[in-house]
Amino acid sequence: MSIIRLMGIDPGSRITGYGIVDMDGPRSRHVASGCIHTASEHPLPERLKTIFERIAAVIRDYQPLEVAAEQVFMHRNPDSALKLGQARGAALCAVVMAGLPVSEYAPRAIKQAVAGSGAADKLQIQRMITLLLNLPESPQADAADALAVAICHGHTRQTLNRLGGIAAFSGRRR
Amino acid sequence: MSIIRLMGIDPGSRITGYGIVDMDGPRSRHVASGCIHTASEHPLPERLKTIFERIAAVIRDYQPLEVAAEQVFMHRNPDSALKLGQARGAALCAVVMAGLPVSEYAPRAIKQAVAGSGAADKLQIQRMITLLLNLPESPQADAADALAVAICHGHTRQTLNRLGGIAAFSGRRR
Repeated sequence: MSIIRLMGIDPGSRITGYGIVDMDGPRSRHVASGCIHTASEHPLPERLKTIFERIAAVIRDYQPLEVAAEQVFMHRNPDSALKLGQARGAALCAVVMAGLPVSEYAPRAIKQAVAGSGAADKLQIQRMITLLLNLPESPQADAADALAVAICHGHTRQTLNRLGGIAAFSGRRR
Repeated sequence: MSIIRLMGIDPGSRITGYGIVDMDGPRSRHVASGCIHTASEHPLPERLKTIFERIAAVIRDYQPLEVAAEQVFMHRNPDSALKLGQARGAALCAVVMAGLPVSEYAPRAIKQAVAGSGAADKLQIQRMITLLLNLPESPQADAADALAVAICHGHTRQTLNRLGGIAAFSGRRR
């Protein structure tokens, strides 16, 4: 099986995590990861520009084949939902404008794929990512979440390809 | 006073309105307006791409100098706030990636500027926009709202320029 490069993103109004992994069957290798910080004292358009440009630059630099993001469910606070939505819109725009497909995964599915339990907490995800990718130190929480969704996508992709090729896989895309 | 071309946008998860006006002092002339429809049955990344590309195309075609959008306040429903946020993020990204400044205005300020009352309803806004811009027929509600925020920006811009030039104006930008 050939190696495919996948990108995960974890958009947020203040920090957007990203992670690039090379998947070789069930094995994953860390390529790059990091956090895009957008200071809340900066004007909104500037913050959205930073997210768009940085995500576009990561795609340009690492050339992933596909991108995955965590699905967002009901937020308790409408104001933070709006802010998260704006950041998410900017990040996803950078992906689609680069011509890449985006798959979305439920938080439980991501935790299950990485930690073996849909109820794993943030610290467990960071630890499992550090172990799975054989990292010298634990990545920041948002970068770890981005790497987790990339790995989740890699596993799902592989399973669906095994089950019936790309047709079945496409049906799962959002 | 020279003519300046302004753009207003009214982003929404299903319909994003846009409007281009030429302002000559207090007078405004309709240049273009319309609605970008994004079918809810289409995948989210595709909808965001449509908004980004169409806003970018309008900017390319009409070359506005500045852009204005309605400020969004507390939404009652977190789910619709997230959806609105995503659409808003895509639309604002298209503006900032085109290198244009965006100003945001409170709904009351927009209604006040166009209809003379901060409590005007959608129908009154449509009627006033039709009158002010001398249109042969009433524009769709979202296009009318976009034209209204463009005109509001034009008036504010003019007042602030009169009060102390661009320095005072910049302070009001978001």
